[in-house]
Amino acid sequence: MAARKLYGSVESTTTMRALASLFEHELKFEFVRVDLNAGDHKKEPFLTLSPFGTVPVFQDGDLILFESTTIMRCISHVYTNPRTEQVYVDPKMQGIAATWIDVEDHHFNPPASKLISELVFKPKNGLPTDEATVAVEEAKLAKVLDVYEERLANSEYLGGDKFTSADLTHLPNLYYLMRTPAKRLFDERPKVRAWCAAIMSRPAWAKVVEMVMEK
Amino acid sequence: MAARKLYGSVESTTTMRALASLFEHELKFEFVRVDLNAGDHKKEPFLTLSPFGTVPVFQDGDLILFESTTIMRCISHVYTNPRTEQVYVDPKMQGIAATWIDVEDHHFNPPASKLISELVFKPKNGLPTDEATVAVEEAKLAKVLDVYEERLANSEYLGGDKFTSADLTHLPNLYYLMRTPAKRLFDERPKVRAWCAAIMSRPAWAKVVEMVMEK
Repeated sequence: MAARKLYGSVESTTTMRALASLFEHELKFEFVRVDLNAGDHKKEPFLTLSPFGTVPVFQDGDLILFESTTIMRCISHVYTNPRTEQVYVDPKMQGIAATWIDVEDHHFNPPASKLISELVFKPKNGLPTDEATVAVEEAKLAKVLDVYEERLANSEYLGGDKFTSADLTHLPNLYYLMRTPAKRLFDERPKVRAWCAAIMSRPAWAKVVEMVMEK
Repeated sequence: MAARKLYGSVESTTTMRALASLFEHELKFEFVRVDLNAGDHKKEPFLTLSPFGTVPVFQDGDLILFESTTIMRCISHVYTNPRTEQVYVDPKMQGIAATWIDVEDHHFNPPASKLISELVFKPKNGLPTDEATVAVEEAKLAKVLDVYEERLANSEYLGGDKFTSADLTHLPNLYYLMRTPAKRLFDERPKVRAWCAAIMSRPAWAKVVEMVMEK
Protein backbone atom coordinates (compact mmCIF):
# COMPACT_ATOMS: atom_id res chain seq x y z
CA MET A 1 0.00 0.00 0.00
CA ALA A 2 1.42 3.34 -1.03
CA ALA A 3 1.76 5.64 1.97
CA ARG A 4 1.28 8.61 -0.34
CA LYS A 5 -2.16 9.09 -1.86
CA LEU A 6 -4.10 11.71 -3.74
CA TYR A 7 -7.88 11.50 -3.57
CA GLY A 8 -9.74 13.37 -6.30
CA SER A 9 -11.36 13.50 -9.71
CA VAL A 10 -9.17 14.09 -12.78
CA GLU A 11 -11.69 16.42 -14.39
CA SER A 12 -11.66 18.86 -11.47
CA THR A 13 -9.24 21.76 -11.81
CA THR A 14 -8.32 21.55 -8.14
CA THR A 15 -7.33 17.87 -8.47
CA MET A 16 -5.37 18.68 -11.66
CA ARG A 17 -3.41 21.33 -9.69
CA ALA A 18 -2.34 18.81 -7.04
CA LEU A 19 -1.52 16.17 -9.67
CA ALA A 20 0.69 18.65 -11.55
CA SER A 21 2.56 19.40 -8.34
CA LEU A 22 3.07 15.70 -7.53
CA PHE A 23 4.36 14.95 -11.04
CA GLU A 24 6.65 18.02 -11.02
CA HIS A 25 8.27 16.68 -7.86
CA GLU A 26 8.52 13.18 -9.31
CA LEU A 27 6.73 11.70 -6.31
CA LYS A 28 5.25 8.22 -6.32
CA PHE A 29 1.65 8.13 -5.16
CA GLU A 30 -1.57 6.19 -5.49
CA PHE A 31 -4.44 8.09 -7.14
CA VAL A 32 -7.76 7.31 -5.46
CA ARG A 33 -10.70 8.33 -7.64
CA VAL A 34 -13.61 10.05 -5.90
CA ASP A 35 -16.89 9.82 -7.81
CA LEU A 36 -18.22 13.38 -7.77
CA ASN A 37 -21.31 12.44 -9.81
CA ALA A 38 -22.29 9.94 -7.12
CA GLY A 39 -21.66 12.64 -4.49
CA ASP A 40 -19.03 10.54 -2.75
CA HIS A 41 -17.14 13.71 -1.75
CA LYS A 42 -20.10 14.80 0.38
CA LYS A 43 -20.34 11.49 2.28
CA GLU A 44 -18.31 9.53 4.78
CA PRO A 45 -15.62 8.25 4.76
CA PHE A 46 -14.44 11.13 2.54
CA LEU A 47 -15.72 13.85 4.87
CA THR A 48 -13.37 12.64 7.60
CA LEU A 49 -10.45 13.45 5.27
CA SER A 50 -11.92 16.66 3.84
CA PRO A 51 -14.43 18.28 6.21
CA PHE A 52 -15.84 20.66 3.58
CA GLY A 53 -16.34 17.83 1.09
CA THR A 54 -13.89 19.22 -1.45
CA VAL A 55 -11.38 17.40 -3.66
CA PRO A 56 -8.45 16.83 -3.68
CA VAL A 57 -7.03 15.40 -0.48
CA PHE A 58 -3.33 14.61 -0.16
CA GLN A 59 -2.22 11.97 2.31
CA ASP A 60 1.35 11.06 3.21
CA GLY A 61 1.31 8.80 6.25
CA ASP A 62 -0.04 10.89 9.13
CA LEU A 63 -0.16 14.09 7.09
CA ILE A 64 -3.57 14.79 5.57
CA LEU A 65 -4.12 18.02 3.64
CA PHE A 66 -7.12 19.41 1.80
CA GLU A 67 -7.31 22.67 -0.25
CA SER A 68 -5.43 22.34 -3.54
CA THR A 69 -3.34 25.50 -3.22
CA THR A 70 -2.18 24.40 0.22
CA ILE A 71 -1.29 20.94 -1.14
CA MET A 72 0.67 22.55 -3.97
CA ARG A 73 2.53 24.95 -1.64
CA CYS A 74 3.28 22.21 0.88
CA ILE A 75 4.57 19.72 -1.71
CA SER A 76 7.04 22.28 -3.06
CA HIS A 77 8.39 22.93 0.43
CA VAL A 78 8.39 19.38 1.81
CA TYR A 79 9.61 17.51 -1.28
CA THR A 80 11.88 20.16 -2.83
CA ASN A 81 13.28 18.97 -6.14
CA PRO A 82 15.96 21.21 -7.66
CA ARG A 83 15.55 19.50 -11.03
CA THR A 84 11.91 20.53 -11.48
CA GLU A 85 9.49 23.06 -10.05
CA GLN A 86 11.29 25.17 -7.51
CA VAL A 87 10.79 27.35 -4.46
CA TYR A 88 12.78 30.40 -3.48
CA VAL A 89 14.79 29.99 -0.28
CA ASP A 90 14.74 33.73 0.51
CA PRO A 91 11.39 34.37 2.22
CA LYS A 92 11.04 37.75 0.46
CA MET A 93 11.40 36.08 -2.96
CA GLN A 94 8.96 33.41 -1.73
CA GLY A 95 6.60 36.26 -0.86
CA ILE A 96 6.69 37.62 -4.39
CA ALA A 97 5.97 34.18 -5.86
CA ALA A 98 3.21 33.65 -3.27
CA THR A 99 1.56 36.89 -4.40
CA TRP A 100 0.90 35.37 -7.80
CA ILE A 101 -0.62 32.23 -6.27
CA ASP A 102 -3.14 34.54 -4.59
CA VAL A 103 -3.57 36.53 -7.81
CA GLU A 104 -4.63 33.34 -9.58
CA ASP A 105 -7.03 32.54 -6.76
CA HIS A 106 -8.56 36.02 -6.42
CA HIS A 107 -8.34 37.57 -9.90
CA PHE A 108 -7.66 34.94 -12.59
CA ASN A 109 -9.73 32.02 -11.32
CA PRO A 110 -13.10 33.79 -10.86
CA PRO A 111 -13.57 34.79 -14.54
CA ALA A 112 -11.68 31.71 -15.79
CA SER A 113 -13.88 29.26 -13.89
CA LYS A 114 -17.09 31.01 -14.99
CA LEU A 115 -15.95 30.90 -18.63
CA ILE A 116 -15.08 27.20 -18.32
CA SER A 117 -18.51 26.53 -16.86
CA GLU A 118 -20.23 28.37 -19.74
CA LEU A 119 -17.98 27.23 -22.60
CA VAL A 120 -16.97 23.69 -21.58
CA PHE A 121 -19.18 22.10 -18.97
CA LYS A 122 -22.58 23.53 -19.95
CA PRO A 123 -22.25 22.37 -23.62
CA LYS A 124 -20.93 19.00 -22.40
CA ASN A 125 -24.09 18.59 -20.31
CA GLY A 126 -26.42 19.72 -23.08
CA LEU A 127 -27.11 23.12 -21.51
CA PRO A 128 -27.08 26.44 -23.42
CA THR A 129 -24.15 28.82 -22.97
CA ASP A 130 -25.11 32.23 -21.55
CA GLU A 131 -23.41 34.56 -24.04
CA ALA A 132 -23.95 37.65 -21.89
CA THR A 133 -22.04 36.02 -19.03
CA VAL A 134 -19.29 35.01 -21.45
CA ALA A 135 -18.89 38.63 -22.62
CA VAL A 136 -18.72 39.98 -19.07
CA GLU A 137 -16.24 37.36 -17.87
CA GLU A 138 -14.05 37.64 -20.98
CA ALA A 139 -13.77 41.40 -20.35
CA LYS A 140 -12.70 40.71 -16.74
CA LEU A 141 -10.18 38.09 -17.82
CA ALA A 142 -8.76 40.44 -20.48
CA LYS A 143 -8.01 43.07 -17.80
CA VAL A 144 -6.26 40.44 -15.68
CA LEU A 145 -4.20 39.33 -18.68
CA ASP A 146 -3.15 42.94 -19.33
CA VAL A 147 -1.51 42.91 -15.89
CA TYR A 148 0.10 39.54 -16.67
CA GLU A 149 1.47 40.87 -19.98
CA GLU A 150 3.19 43.70 -18.12
CA ARG A 151 4.51 41.38 -15.40
CA LEU A 152 5.87 38.92 -17.96
CA ALA A 153 7.64 41.74 -19.83
CA ASN A 154 9.82 42.12 -16.72
CA SER A 155 9.99 38.56 -15.42
CA GLU A 156 10.29 35.26 -17.29
CA TYR A 157 7.77 33.59 -15.01
CA LEU A 158 5.05 35.09 -12.84
CA GLY A 159 6.80 34.36 -9.54
CA GLY A 160 10.30 35.35 -10.71
CA ASP A 161 13.06 33.97 -12.92
CA LYS A 162 12.11 30.32 -12.52
CA PHE A 163 9.03 28.09 -12.80
CA THR A 164 7.25 27.94 -9.43
CA SER A 165 3.83 27.15 -8.00
CA ALA A 166 2.82 30.68 -9.09
CA ASP A 167 2.83 29.40 -12.69
CA LEU A 168 1.76 25.81 -11.98
CA THR A 169 -1.42 26.94 -10.23
CA HIS A 170 -2.70 28.37 -13.54
CA LEU A 171 -2.37 25.16 -15.57
CA PRO A 172 -5.77 23.54 -14.87
CA ASN A 173 -7.78 26.57 -15.96
CA LEU A 174 -5.47 27.10 -18.96
CA TYR A 175 -6.07 23.50 -20.04
CA TYR A 176 -9.80 24.14 -20.43
CA LEU A 177 -9.63 27.76 -21.64
CA MET A 178 -7.30 26.84 -24.52
CA ARG A 179 -10.10 24.66 -25.90
CA THR A 180 -12.54 27.62 -26.04
CA PRO A 181 -12.82 30.86 -28.05
CA ALA A 182 -11.36 32.64 -24.98
CA LYS A 183 -7.98 31.28 -26.17
CA ARG A 184 -7.70 34.42 -28.31
CA LEU A 185 -7.34 36.56 -25.16
CA PHE A 186 -4.06 34.74 -24.48
CA ASP A 187 -2.93 34.65 -28.12
CA GLU A 188 -3.38 38.41 -28.49
CA ARG A 189 -0.76 39.07 -25.79
CA PRO A 190 2.73 37.93 -26.90
CA LYS A 191 4.31 37.54 -23.46
CA VAL A 192 1.26 35.74 -22.11
CA ARG A 193 1.12 33.50 -25.18
CA ALA A 194 4.81 32.53 -24.79
CA TRP A 195 4.38 31.91 -21.04
CA CYS A 196 1.36 29.67 -21.65
CA ALA A 197 3.26 27.68 -24.28
CA ALA A 198 6.25 27.28 -21.95
CA ILE A 199 4.37 26.11 -18.88
CA MET A 200 1.88 23.90 -20.76
CA SER A 201 4.72 22.01 -22.47
CA ARG A 202 6.27 20.79 -19.24
CA PRO A 203 6.54 16.97 -19.04
CA ALA A 204 4.82 16.89 -15.64
CA TRP A 205 1.82 18.70 -17.08
CA ALA A 206 1.69 16.27 -20.05
CA LYS A 207 1.16 13.46 -17.51
CA VAL A 208 -1.85 15.25 -16.04
CA VAL A 209 -3.33 15.85 -19.49
CA GLU A 210 -2.85 12.15 -20.29
CA MET A 211 -4.82 11.21 -17.16
CA VAL A 212 -7.65 13.60 -18.09
CA MET A 213 -7.77 12.22 -21.66
CA GLU A 214 -7.82 8.60 -20.49
CA LYS A 215 -10.65 9.16 -18.04
CA MET B 1 11.10 58.40 5.97
CA ALA B 2 10.17 54.96 7.22
CA ALA B 3 11.43 52.28 4.86
CA ARG B 4 8.52 50.08 5.88
CA LYS B 5 5.04 51.20 4.82
CA LEU B 6 1.54 49.84 4.65
CA TYR B 7 -0.84 51.46 2.18
CA GLY B 8 -4.52 50.86 2.83
CA SER B 9 -7.81 51.86 4.39
CA VAL B 10 -8.49 50.94 8.03
CA GLU B 11 -12.10 50.02 7.33
CA SER B 12 -11.19 47.35 4.77
CA THR B 13 -10.89 43.84 6.13
CA THR B 14 -7.87 43.14 3.93
CA THR B 15 -5.99 46.15 5.35
CA MET B 16 -6.98 45.11 8.89
CA ARG B 17 -5.45 41.67 8.23
CA ALA B 18 -2.09 43.16 7.25
CA LEU B 19 -2.17 45.64 10.17
CA ALA B 20 -2.81 42.79 12.62
CA SER B 21 0.17 40.92 11.24
CA LEU B 22 2.46 43.97 11.48
CA PHE B 23 1.41 44.68 15.09
CA GLU B 24 1.79 40.99 16.05
CA HIS B 25 5.38 41.12 14.85
CA GLU B 26 6.00 44.43 16.63
CA LEU B 27 7.24 46.04 13.42
CA LYS B 28 7.58 49.78 12.99
CA PHE B 29 5.91 51.08 9.86
CA GLU B 30 4.27 54.14 8.38
CA PHE B 31 0.58 53.76 7.56
CA VAL B 32 -0.32 55.49 4.30
CA ARG B 33 -4.06 56.02 3.97
CA VAL B 34 -5.59 55.32 0.56
CA ASP B 35 -8.92 57.08 0.01
CA LEU B 36 -11.17 54.34 -1.38
CA ASN B 37 -14.17 56.69 -1.62
CA ALA B 38 -12.17 58.95 -3.94
CA GLY B 39 -11.15 55.87 -5.94
CA ASP B 40 -7.45 56.51 -5.32
CA HIS B 41 -6.80 52.75 -5.35
CA LYS B 42 -7.87 52.58 -8.98
CA LYS B 43 -5.57 55.42 -10.13
CA GLU B 44 -1.86 56.07 -10.47
CA PRO B 45 0.45 56.20 -8.58
CA PHE B 46 -1.27 53.45 -6.55
CA LEU B 47 -1.72 51.11 -9.53
CA THR B 48 2.04 50.92 -9.97
CA LEU B 49 2.24 49.39 -6.49
CA SER B 50 -0.90 47.25 -6.78
CA PRO B 51 -1.71 46.41 -10.40
CA PHE B 52 -5.24 45.16 -9.61
CA GLY B 53 -6.03 48.28 -7.60
CA THR B 54 -6.54 46.44 -4.33
CA VAL B 55 -5.52 47.44 -0.81
CA PRO B 56 -3.35 46.84 1.14
CA VAL B 57 0.19 47.13 -0.20
CA PHE B 58 3.19 46.38 1.99
CA GLN B 59 6.52 48.00 1.17
CA ASP B 60 9.83 47.32 2.85
CA GLY B 61 12.60 48.93 0.83
CA ASP B 62 12.68 47.16 -2.51
CA LEU B 63 10.09 44.58 -1.49
CA ILE B 64 6.56 45.48 -2.59
CA LEU B 65 3.72 43.02 -1.92
CA PHE B 66 0.01 43.20 -2.61
CA GLU B 67 -2.67 40.59 -1.62
CA SER B 68 -3.34 40.64 2.12
CA THR B 69 -2.95 36.91 2.74
CA THR B 70 0.44 36.97 1.00
CA ILE B 71 1.51 39.96 3.10
CA MET B 72 0.42 38.16 6.26
CA ARG B 73 2.21 34.91 5.31
CA CYS B 74 5.35 36.74 4.24
CA ILE B 75 5.57 38.90 7.39
CA SER B 76 5.39 35.80 9.60
CA HIS B 77 8.26 34.17 7.69
CA VAL B 78 10.49 37.22 7.15
CA TYR B 79 10.10 38.89 10.54
CA THR B 80 9.64 35.82 12.77
CA ASN B 81 8.95 36.84 16.36
CA PRO B 82 8.91 33.97 18.87
CA ARG B 83 7.17 36.19 21.44
CA THR B 84 4.05 36.73 19.36
CA GLU B 85 2.34 35.13 16.36
CA GLN B 86 4.37 32.16 15.25
CA VAL B 87 5.10 29.94 12.29
CA TYR B 88 5.88 26.25 12.35
CA VAL B 89 9.40 25.39 11.23
CA ASP B 90 8.44 21.89 10.06
CA PRO B 91 6.98 22.37 6.54
CA LYS B 92 4.34 19.67 7.18
CA MET B 93 3.10 21.54 10.27
CA GLN B 94 3.24 24.72 8.19
CA GLY B 95 1.09 22.94 5.61
CA ILE B 96 -1.59 22.17 8.18
CA ALA B 97 -1.66 25.79 9.35
CA ALA B 98 -1.70 26.97 5.72
CA THR B 99 -4.78 24.81 5.08
CA TRP B 100 -6.78 26.96 7.48
CA ILE B 101 -5.63 30.18 5.80
CA ASP B 102 -7.17 28.80 2.61
CA VAL B 103 -10.24 27.61 4.51
CA GLU B 104 -10.85 31.19 5.67
CA ASP B 105 -10.40 32.44 2.11
CA HIS B 106 -12.56 29.81 0.38
CA HIS B 107 -15.18 28.81 2.96
CA PHE B 108 -15.40 31.32 5.83
CA ASN B 109 -14.87 34.61 3.98
CA PRO B 110 -17.55 34.23 1.25
CA PRO B 111 -20.56 34.02 3.61
CA ALA B 112 -18.87 36.29 6.20
CA SER B 113 -18.22 39.10 3.72
CA LYS B 114 -21.76 38.88 2.29
CA LEU B 115 -23.23 39.07 5.82
CA ILE B 116 -21.04 42.07 6.66
CA SER B 117 -22.16 43.79 3.48
CA GLU B 118 -25.84 43.20 4.34
CA LEU B 119 -25.68 43.78 8.10
CA VAL B 120 -23.00 46.46 8.47
CA PHE B 121 -22.23 48.40 5.30
CA LYS B 122 -25.69 48.56 3.71
CA PRO B 123 -27.34 50.00 6.86
CA LYS B 124 -24.37 52.37 7.27
CA ASN B 125 -25.01 53.67 3.76
CA GLY B 126 -28.79 53.92 4.24
CA LEU B 127 -29.57 50.87 2.11
CA PRO B 128 -32.03 48.12 3.11
CA THR B 129 -30.70 44.75 4.26
CA ASP B 130 -31.77 41.82 2.08
CA GLU B 131 -33.09 39.39 4.72
CA ALA B 132 -33.28 36.46 2.28
CA THR B 133 -29.56 36.82 1.54
CA VAL B 134 -28.85 37.03 5.27
CA ALA B 135 -30.71 33.75 5.88
CA VAL B 136 -28.88 31.94 3.08
CA GLU B 137 -25.43 33.19 4.11
CA GLU B 138 -26.04 32.54 7.82
CA ALA B 139 -26.89 28.93 6.97
CA LYS B 140 -23.64 28.62 4.98
CA LEU B 141 -21.61 30.18 7.78
CA ALA B 142 -23.23 27.88 10.36
CA LYS B 143 -22.05 24.82 8.40
CA VAL B 144 -18.52 26.22 8.26
CA LEU B 145 -18.58 26.87 12.01
CA ASP B 146 -19.67 23.28 12.64
CA VAL B 147 -16.40 22.18 11.05
CA TYR B 148 -14.50 24.74 13.15
CA GLU B 149 -16.18 23.47 16.34
CA GLU B 150 -14.93 19.96 15.56
CA ARG B 151 -11.43 21.17 14.66
CA LEU B 152 -11.18 23.26 17.83
CA ALA B 153 -12.25 20.29 19.96
CA ASN B 154 -8.96 18.64 18.90
CA SER B 155 -6.66 21.63 18.55
CA GLU B 156 -6.37 24.80 20.64
CA TYR B 157 -5.97 26.96 17.55
CA LEU B 158 -7.04 26.32 13.96
CA GLY B 159 -3.50 25.84 12.65
CA GLY B 160 -2.27 23.75 15.59
CA ASP B 161 -1.24 24.25 19.22
CA LYS B 162 -0.23 27.90 18.85
CA PHE B 163 -1.62 31.16 17.45
CA THR B 164 -0.64 31.49 13.80
CA SER B 165 -1.74 33.32 10.66
CA ALA B 166 -4.47 30.66 10.34
CA ASP B 167 -6.24 32.35 13.29
CA LEU B 168 -5.14 35.92 12.61
CA THR B 169 -6.61 35.87 9.09
CA HIS B 170 -10.13 35.53 10.62
CA LEU B 171 -9.92 38.64 12.84
CA PRO B 172 -11.16 41.32 10.40
CA ASN B 173 -14.37 39.49 9.52
CA LEU B 174 -14.91 38.55 13.19
CA TYR B 175 -14.59 42.21 14.17
CA TYR B 176 -17.60 43.13 12.03
CA LEU B 177 -19.64 39.94 12.54
CA MET B 178 -19.52 40.30 16.34
CA ARG B 179 -21.45 43.56 15.93
CA THR B 180 -24.33 41.82 14.09
CA PRO B 181 -27.03 39.27 14.97
CA ALA B 182 -24.79 36.64 13.31
CA LYS B 183 -22.74 36.74 16.54
CA ARG B 184 -25.12 34.09 17.89
CA LEU B 185 -23.71 31.54 15.39
CA PHE B 186 -20.37 31.85 17.21
CA ASP B 187 -21.86 32.02 20.70
CA GLU B 188 -23.85 28.81 20.16
CA ARG B 189 -20.64 26.80 19.64
CA PRO B 190 -18.53 26.66 22.84
CA LYS B 191 -15.16 25.90 21.26
CA VAL B 192 -15.67 28.52 18.56
CA ARG B 193 -16.82 31.06 21.16
CA ALA B 194 -13.72 30.47 23.32
CA TRP B 195 -11.42 30.66 20.27
CA CYS B 196 -12.98 33.96 19.17
CA ALA B 197 -12.57 35.41 22.66
CA ALA B 198 -8.93 34.29 22.82
CA ILE B 199 -7.83 35.64 19.46
CA MET B 200 -9.83 38.88 19.66
CA SER B 201 -8.26 39.76 23.01
CA ARG B 202 -4.70 39.82 21.70
CA PRO B 203 -2.92 43.14 22.29
CA ALA B 204 -1.92 43.40 18.61
CA TRP B 205 -5.55 43.12 17.57
CA ALA B 206 -6.55 45.81 20.10
CA LYS B 207 -4.24 48.20 18.23
CA VAL B 208 -6.04 47.52 14.95
CA VAL B 209 -9.44 48.05 16.58
CA GLU B 210 -8.19 51.36 18.02
CA MET B 211 -7.20 52.53 14.54
CA VAL B 212 -10.62 51.57 13.12
CA MET B 213 -12.40 53.37 15.96
CA GLU B 214 -10.31 56.53 15.56
CA LYS B 215 -10.91 56.78 11.83
